[in-house]
Amino acid sequence: MKRFLAKNACFVTLLALSGTALGADLIDYPDGYRLWAHVKSMTIHKGHPLENPFLGVHHVYANDRALAGLKSNSFKDGSVLVFDLLQNQDAGHASVEGKRVLIGIMVKDSQRFSKTDGWGYEGWAGNSRAKRLVNDGGASCHGCHTQQKERDFVFSQWRD
Amino acid sequence: MKRFLAKNACFVTLLALSGTALGADLIDYPDGYRLWAHVKSMTIHKGHPLENPFLGVHHVYANDRALAGLKSNSFKDGSVLVFDLLQNQDAGHASVEGKRVLIGIMVKDSQRFSKTDGWGYEGWAGNSRAKRLVNDGGASCHGCHTQQKERDFVFSQWRD
Repeated sequence: MKRFLAKNACFVTLLALSGTALGADLIDYPDGYRLWAHVKSMTIHKGHPLENPFLGVHHVYANDRALAGLKSNSFKDGSVLVFDLLQNQDAGHASVEGKRVLIGIMVKDSQRFSKTDGWGYEGWAGNSRAKRLVNDGGASCHGCHTQQKERDFVFSQWRD
Repeated sequence: MKRFLAKNACFVTLLALSGTALGADLIDYPDGYRLWAHVKSMTIHKGHPLENPFLGVHHVYANDRALAGLKSNSFKDGSVLVFDLLQNQDAGHASVEGKRVLIGIMVKDSQRFSKTDGWGYEGWAGNSRAKRLVNDGGASCHGCHTQQKERDFVFSQWRD
């Protein structure tokens, strides 16, 4: 039994290590995005076409490269935009932020994501860094973003 | 006439220069705050006690010192928080940001603003850097912020 446990502990460790190594295929969680530039916010209410899954208040954040891209409508590889969705809570003639529902990101890498015009998409449920939400290689996300082809597939626009 | 104009141009120049010099009494506009850390957002609707003048969606931004203060509940001199108020526009089962209504700021300087517990307050209408909104030395702003004395007079709290 001891030997079995030792063997399996080893297997679990290997899985964890290989998970890291194989992670080359996975899009990284955008560490530190809460300190990136806040681009804009929007609230989606019941009845909106995007209420499932985007009901709530969302904030969009851009890293430095994405910020430059927003100003030029052309995004360099390494650009990352985060869509940070929180519950929109009623607070007596006011709306305040509730718990995080999910985050979604789009990452520019022309070679890696060539099938989706250079953009990779991923999402994480709630505050999890493990529960990933995109399982079609970003095809459905990109299908919608294709509306914005002339702005390099990005909906958000920078405002002063 | 030429001489008059020359004299008055000089006077205008002097006024401009003295405006800068006398500006020691005025709180500076928080240049670049749109790239500071986005702390939180909230929407105030009709019927809320603060609807006049705070109707709309507001975002709070913190400079580096204020960000450290939010995490420690103690703000060092030089901390600046910006309250950025935009119109909250209806967009068919969604709410989007409209024009800027005003910005308000609070600035920590223990000596300069000792009458208001070390915090100075100022506001600017719309996108103007000239139309200032606070004319009572910040007394009314601080009267409300006194509710938050145990958090160094700041309402906003940092969230991940």
